[in-house]
Amino acid sequence: MIIIMKQGTTHEHVEELSQHIERWNVKANPIYGEDTIVIGLVGDTGAVDKDALMLDPQVENIIKVQEPFKLANRKFHPDNSVVEIAPGVVVGGKKLVVMAGPCSVESEEQIIDVAKHVQADGATVLRGGAWKPRSSPYSFQGLKAEGLELLHKAHEATGLPVVTEITNPAHIDIFMDKCDCFQVGARNMQNFELLKELGQTRKPILLKRGFANTMEEFLMSAEYIMAGGNENVILCERGIRTYEKYTRNTLDISAVPVLKRMSHLPVVVDPSHAGGIYWMVEPLAKAAVAAGADGLMIEVHNDPAHALSDGAQSLTYDSFHHTMNALRAVAAAVDREI
Amino acid sequence: MIIIMKQGTTHEHVEELSQHIERWNVKANPIYGEDTIVIGLVGDTGAVDKDALMLDPQVENIIKVQEPFKLANRKFHPDNSVVEIAPGVVVGGKKLVVMAGPCSVESEEQIIDVAKHVQADGATVLRGGAWKPRSSPYSFQGLKAEGLELLHKAHEATGLPVVTEITNPAHIDIFMDKCDCFQVGARNMQNFELLKELGQTRKPILLKRGFANTMEEFLMSAEYIMAGGNENVILCERGIRTYEKYTRNTLDISAVPVLKRMSHLPVVVDPSHAGGIYWMVEPLAKAAVAAGADGLMIEVHNDPAHALSDGAQSLTYDSFHHTMNALRAVAAAVDREI
Amino acid sequence: MIIIMKQGTTHEHVEELSQHIERWNVKANPIYGEDTIVIGLVGDTGAVDKDALMLDPQVENIIKVQEPFKLANRKFHPDNSVVEIAPGVVVGGKKLVVMAGPCSVESEEQIIDVAKHVQADGATVLRGGAWKPRSSPYSFQGLKAEGLELLHKAHEATGLPVVTEITNPAHIDIFMDKCDCFQVGARNMQNFELLKELGQTRKPILLKRGFANTMEEFLMSAEYIMAGGNENVILCERGIRTYEKYTRNTLDISAVPVLKRMSHLPVVVDPSHAGGIYWMVEPLAKAAVAAGADGLMIEVHNDPAHALSDGAQSLTYDSFHHTMNALRAVAAAVDREI
Amino acid sequence: MIIIMKQGTTHEHVEELSQHIERWNVKANPIYGEDTIVIGLVGDTGAVDKDALMLDPQVENIIKVQEPFKLANRKFHPDNSVVEIAPGVVVGGKKLVVMAGPCSVESEEQIIDVAKHVQADGATVLRGGAWKPRSSPYSFQGLKAEGLELLHKAHEATGLPVVTEITNPAHIDIFMDKCDCFQVGARNMQNFELLKELGQTRKPILLKRGFANTMEEFLMSAEYIMAGGNENVILCERGIRTYEKYTRNTLDISAVPVLKRMSHLPVVVDPSHAGGIYWMVEPLAKAAVAAGADGLMIEVHNDPAHALSDGAQSLTYDSFHHTMNALRAVAAAVDREI
Repeated sequence: MIIIMKQGTTHEHVEELSQHIERWNVKANPIYGEDTIVIGLVGDTGAVDKDALMLDPQVENIIKVQEPFKLANRKFHPDNSVVEIAPGVVVGGKKLVVMAGPCSVESEEQIIDVAKHVQADGATVLRGGAWKPRSSPYSFQGLKAEGLELLHKAHEATGLPVVTEITNPAHIDIFMDKCDCFQVGARNMQNFELLKELGQTRKPILLKRGFANTMEEFLMSAEYIMAGGNENVILCERGIRTYEKYTRNTLDISAVPVLKRMSHLPVVVDPSHAGGIYWMVEPLAKAAVAAGADGLMIEVHNDPAHALSDGAQSLTYDSFHHTMNALRAVAAAVDREI
Repeated sequence: MIIIMKQGTTHEHVEELSQHIERWNVKANPIYGEDTIVIGLVGDTGAVDKDALMLDPQVENIIKVQEPFKLANRKFHPDNSVVEIAPGVVVGGKKLVVMAGPCSVESEEQIIDVAKHVQADGATVLRGGAWKPRSSPYSFQGLKAEGLELLHKAHEATGLPVVTEITNPAHIDIFMDKCDCFQVGARNMQNFELLKELGQTRKPILLKRGFANTMEEFLMSAEYIMAGGNENVILCERGIRTYEKYTRNTLDISAVPVLKRMSHLPVVVDPSHAGGIYWMVEPLAKAAVAAGADGLMIEVHNDPAHALSDGAQSLTYDSFHHTMNALRAVAAAVDREI
Repeated sequence: MIIIMKQGTTHEHVEELSQHIERWNVKANPIYGEDTIVIGLVGDTGAVDKDALMLDPQVENIIKVQEPFKLANRKFHPDNSVVEIAPGVVVGGKKLVVMAGPCSVESEEQIIDVAKHVQADGATVLRGGAWKPRSSPYSFQGLKAEGLELLHKAHEATGLPVVTEITNPAHIDIFMDKCDCFQVGARNMQNFELLKELGQTRKPILLKRGFANTMEEFLMSAEYIMAGGNENVILCERGIRTYEKYTRNTLDISAVPVLKRMSHLPVVVDPSHAGGIYWMVEPLAKAAVAAGADGLMIEVHNDPAHALSDGAQSLTYDSFHHTMNALRAVAAAVDREI
Repeated sequence: MIIIMKQGTTHEHVEELSQHIERWNVKANPIYGEDTIVIGLVGDTGAVDKDALMLDPQVENIIKVQEPFKLANRKFHPDNSVVEIAPGVVVGGKKLVVMAGPCSVESEEQIIDVAKHVQADGATVLRGGAWKPRSSPYSFQGLKAEGLELLHKAHEATGLPVVTEITNPAHIDIFMDKCDCFQVGARNMQNFELLKELGQTRKPILLKRGFANTMEEFLMSAEYIMAGGNENVILCERGIRTYEKYTRNTLDISAVPVLKRMSHLPVVVDPSHAGGIYWMVEPLAKAAVAAGADGLMIEVHNDPAHALSDGAQSLTYDSFHHTMNALRAVAAAVDREI
């Protein structure tokens, strides 16, 4: 942590402030420059109250040097982490993971049919929503517990592990036996009550980036889960909110190389929510693989025109088949496989 | 709802699509133009699946004409709503409400002392955080149940009604007797599980705008609460996230006139979180009153330099006193009072 | 300037880098901490190449301590600057300046009529566009040189000084005698060729903030003009681009107190372009005055429904009259006058 | 164009408004619904004044159906356009174009050396800045006319065609013989005076997207050039400004498939300015190729640590060599070549 003092601050003031700071068990090293005085803090500055320091009338600015995330930080864990969702299904290795399935589980027939089709084309995880957070209280809210049951049946029918979204800490118990990976949606990325309770489990968590959260905040939310003891966190970039409205969100493709540099956690990309429309899924998915993503989450529906939610961005079986072939070529070009 | 067809769509296609649409019990009226064909839908289009329609290969675009919020919509409720937080403390009338207090409750002494001081300067509601959602798991998380108890003691000592943030639906029961108004924080604006359960209570809800949510989404979240039967919703603008980083957030002052035009619900402004620094509180608060806000939420602390959270943006007693005087003059200039 | 080194950097590397840096005639002071090594640079760091330093493989980050604007900086010029547009018309004093008039000059009759009406209600500067930058090449582009002539006639008829937008350095000569203040529009805020040539004149410049520029960039553009010797710069906040699309732009009301704290230059607000619709002009204008603005720029049209541009955001004479009365009350409440 | 009327509008009002509209030589077709009345306008609505219509007190909203760009619109030009920069160097074909070179031309030796190296690795166009728009008046502003001369020498030495940025319409003449393609930088994307004059030439224009401009505005700026008769426009995505500050800009990778769908013009991507740091260039470049870009613009410098501008984002010869090899593999995977 570096404290920048206002011009004209007296040496006495700097000395006093330095003593005040040392009560937090850090060492304060002032440097006196021509125009500027700064105080460098060394030691564990985690306990230092930046807000309180800002109130010193002579403090111009305070800069954090250390990144605030520890467990998620690549600096302290140089090797890639690999998260195992099910036996043989790992995220973060040479083989990319493709999580595919409908936005919402709609019926037993539907979810089993979709599961079989996406499995045939190379998906290794089944996605599907049981509880659906929707902007409008008047929209379809998901089949809830029944949806969870149907996902489990699809798992039994195909062997595919299941990832599904959880929206309430009170639901953890009923999810535990019915899914292989919890999904935390973008709107709940900073629902810290939920994150803390998921940190108490040991099941993999697919954590989606909030649509207006920075990468640092994203890693701090991963840190909430990891601080509870659950290190099986998969990061998912799914588009951010910008001024551009042609696309539903703006896929932040830079997040792939940046997150992989800042953190050791695996990174997957959701091109379906990013673009918001089916014809963007393939080019965005190819870009994600080329940029180094460890996997993809793709919405596929048996009949998009009659889907109960997100039909516009869902792929048909045919287009998923086509997309998977295209992705295999790109994966090979960057020395990965699907 | 208006459906815009692609150029060159045949009349047969339009007729077929129109019949398809009428299964949702709305009437489809095609208009054939020189370059453009559009279909106007009349009737209750709430059930029409826009996503499904977008998959018709000849559909260019679909435009919603009606606003998706009903209960919060001024069109169906032309008069201002007034929310009573406690006997004599109403939000939405000529008299502005000022909710003041510390970011976090820290001790019995502290909260009672702050309550007395802000009351003396004209605040009529006490704010204070018991559960604190923080970006970092390593930051102070609030006194939780004990904080709630202390707020209640401050209420008993001063008579001020209490507003405090709730972050988990499981906590509603213990909040019920200890506060007069639930606060839903910006990060939970789309925590629909929480909103639905708060809709089942009849206590006033101060709903903060998410830092990257549109005004329409904000009103849809109010709608979630109101759809449960609780119409006592107070909207709170607290700054949005933009590219500009000099301020913590960008206060969207336009939200005041816009929300009051779109909705009948009262609108308050939180200048403390918007600017993120104490010296911006007064000018932003004055701007809010001048723009027509129904009230303010302001952080005040007995000793900001030693606050456990948000010290930098908290006012001292002296600056709160000064600010309240300044606000009285502006309120009078726009025919309101404090 | 502070250089933060990566963990594990050797003392030798730090010493070498320090010597390398001192070739730019600054002094490099390393501090060795437990987890962190930083190098504080003292002296005039203007010449130090931050980009080049970033390429040192051991450099983690570089932080600028000094603000990059000098002439516009309040630190080096503590008193408010006052810009005189015409004898008796000064911006930055106790009396607020109101610049009013149509988006585009359309005819002699129109501009003189508008000038007389806005003058009668207290405007002291006439605004009007001759060259109109429009997003579409197919929209009305302004009357150009003829418009300038007509503005001059309106000046002769009323005595009001004139502010009008310049979009091309090649036009400066013809503007010199026809206007009292150059306006640089938001889209040209970083047209540095234009700024440099305007810096060679001594006429006041109303510099509008680019719709996606930071306040620091805004002040750097002021610096371009001032570095040429023309210190008569008036800053104008006119709304920024955000994800929120209900309003044309988001008025950044915080910019008023922030710019006035960072810089000594006067600050005016354009509520017409910020909101983009007539009914927002009055509340936003009142907010601007309450927040401490030194003036306003307001679009007024004799017949908004038939305006050649920006009709939707223009006030009628009646609504301008009403707005000015409302503003007088707010100005008095903050110890200013109109 | 579709006009949506407020609830409760009388038939008389609609009929009157329809007649009023028909003075613009379009046909107005009202549809009367249960809750909604809309008026569909058919014919060439280019002349209809949307702003003026918005002032009708019964008009709720107006929606443009047709995209405002014509010449750049794929609807009216279904085949891809191909722009020839020099004999054999075309943008928009199967072979991708790579434009490489330093941010700024610094000396004859430097520019010729860089030109030879990038040519050896497969670049077919030389980039280099002579006039440099910089945020600060105190930063290096480019060698200007001398830089242009040196670029020309590098062209003579290698045969590579040259693209370089123009910032002032007054410079067009001196650029004409010295470069093969004008670059319009992000900050000048809406410098309409410059665009109009470039439209009068017949030389290719590399038009960079403004850092906060929508794709529609981007295509309208292309339209400005094309409306002057110059259809040789190449679109360049180079990152947009968002709330995320880890990267200099956020590369909008979606812009590649979207622009290619909206327009027939070729699209190239500049990963150097998007990420702002050398280690992001390769992953972003690979993503761009995978997403369907027609080419890349990449900064390469002989000695990035001593570059006069943008050193941090420049590739060394070695890393450019490595990147080009990686790109060849990705290009092949999407059936393109370099």
